[in-house]
Amino acid sequence: MPSFTFRRQLTIEWGQCDPAGIVFNSRFFEMFDTSSWLLFEAALGVKPQDLGRHFGIIGIALVGARADFLKPVRFGAAIEIASRVSEFRRSSFDVEHKITIAGELAVDGGESRVWTARNKDDADKIGAAPIPAEVIARFG
Amino acid sequence: MPSFTFRRQLTIEWGQCDPAGIVFNSRFFEMFDTSSWLLFEAALGVKPQDLGRHFGIIGIALVGARADFLKPVRFGAAIEIASRVSEFRRSSFDVEHKITIAGELAVDGGESRVWTARNKDDADKIGAAPIPAEVIARFG
Amino acid sequence: MPSFTFRRQLTIEWGQCDPAGIVFNSRFFEMFDTSSWLLFEAALGVKPQDLGRHFGIIGIALVGARADFLKPVRFGAAIEIASRVSEFRRSSFDVEHKITIAGELAVDGGESRVWTARNKDDADKIGAAPIPAEVIARFG
Amino acid sequence: MPSFTFRRQLTIEWGQCDPAGIVFNSRFFEMFDTSSWLLFEAALGVKPQDLGRHFGIIGIALVGARADFLKPVRFGAAIEIASRVSEFRRSSFDVEHKITIAGELAVDGGESRVWTARNKDDADKIGAAPIPAEVIARFG
Repeated sequence: MPSFTFRRQLTIEWGQCDPAGIVFNSRFFEMFDTSSWLLFEAALGVKPQDLGRHFGIIGIALVGARADFLKPVRFGAAIEIASRVSEFRRSSFDVEHKITIAGELAVDGGESRVWTARNKDDADKIGAAPIPAEVIARFG
Repeated sequence: MPSFTFRRQLTIEWGQCDPAGIVFNSRFFEMFDTSSWLLFEAALGVKPQDLGRHFGIIGIALVGARADFLKPVRFGAAIEIASRVSEFRRSSFDVEHKITIAGELAVDGGESRVWTARNKDDADKIGAAPIPAEVIARFG
Repeated sequence: MPSFTFRRQLTIEWGQCDPAGIVFNSRFFEMFDTSSWLLFEAALGVKPQDLGRHFGIIGIALVGARADFLKPVRFGAAIEIASRVSEFRRSSFDVEHKITIAGELAVDGGESRVWTARNKDDADKIGAAPIPAEVIARFG
Repeated sequence: MPSFTFRRQLTIEWGQCDPAGIVFNSRFFEMFDTSSWLLFEAALGVKPQDLGRHFGIIGIALVGARADFLKPVRFGAAIEIASRVSEFRRSSFDVEHKITIAGELAVDGGESRVWTARNKDDADKIGAAPIPAEVIARFG
């Protein structure tokens, strides 16, 4: 199982919170997406905006996302997001995102993504492509 | 299984789309949340902003959300969101949200929510409360 | 002064509101942007996603936005947004957006936009292009 | 004129950008709001979530916002936001927000805010209150 983990710390902003004073759920999925880009940047040394060109792909398309909201996360809360690829398959992979406050798990999230490229024979077609072994190795 | 279904039609906006020209994932979770409020309004005849007061609860707290993104949904796409409570439990329930384009499923989503109230003996405590039978009956 | 006005009605959603229970300011600018696209669709009969191709332009680039927030707009409020081009210049124009609740002005907003096209001699260059007279006439 | 300036550095995220590959305008107003909170925290030493309680106010209500978008800001861009109170009046003030990329001004924004408190004689009424001299002094 890949063990490379990317962590970042954020402080919850006013505009991320709803009338209950806690983070509105869609905001967590914004955080997950950004953390996935940053996880890949940290593992591969390639900036998000260069990822496609660098590997000859369209991107790492999101095909699924989920989260369990275990504790309310309030305006001003200091959170940590720890992100890790939990499984690589041939052309897709799962990322887990765990948000903690002072070490306690508050949001348990995940994404499924596909290594997406243009078809070699028909550039108008887009689809899943095999993830290069050297990419997977960097998450070891 | 509750069969009451709330449907609404939307056209995808420029600001909901990412540099790939398709809806950014967090926007679907915004749509789900609003559809859940509107589903309850349609079933119960109570406006979202009156739901808490009407039933003596804090709200219908979101404790889980998920989506599978099956087809890209582009700027300008005409979508339909069909939302339905798929299961009521004692104090929690699941809502399924299916987004279709011209009848084809594009996003298959869901939420888990809790009927949340103040504790009768200690108003500072908030927690799950039994969902009234007459509420469940309206979704029949 | 162009008099063609596009009006739409919205109900404020939970996820658009902040911990004060009122619309978070950035959400109004989302509404303005969508109303501008819809104003052009209504005046020109061209769908937003076809606007660029139809007129041989890149788009109607936003170069300025502003709003005065006169009254709080709460969760569940029924609002109307009335949008109108207040001035056409050679290659730019201003759109005013007035949000009312039960006829009372709540938000007084505006945008400045540029009719943006690729340079005819150098397609890598993008810049302001003259707005066709027949476009302006449709807003009469 | 107050000279205290708060600066922060951000990298533009995928989800902040639109199909043109540049930041969608509403996202800048999110950044401005957060920078205003952080400017006050930096000047006053009070965390955003404690500001109301600390000064006996409701908050620093936003009554106006504006921005000129001078240069496109792309996915992955490294930006700096410099925020400063440009003028204090009796019970309101203006904040200017300048976003630069490598020292070049890309977005020139501003907000108007009101020092907002409950009426001393009628707690149901909310309105502008005089800004304490010691608050203004901290921005000197």
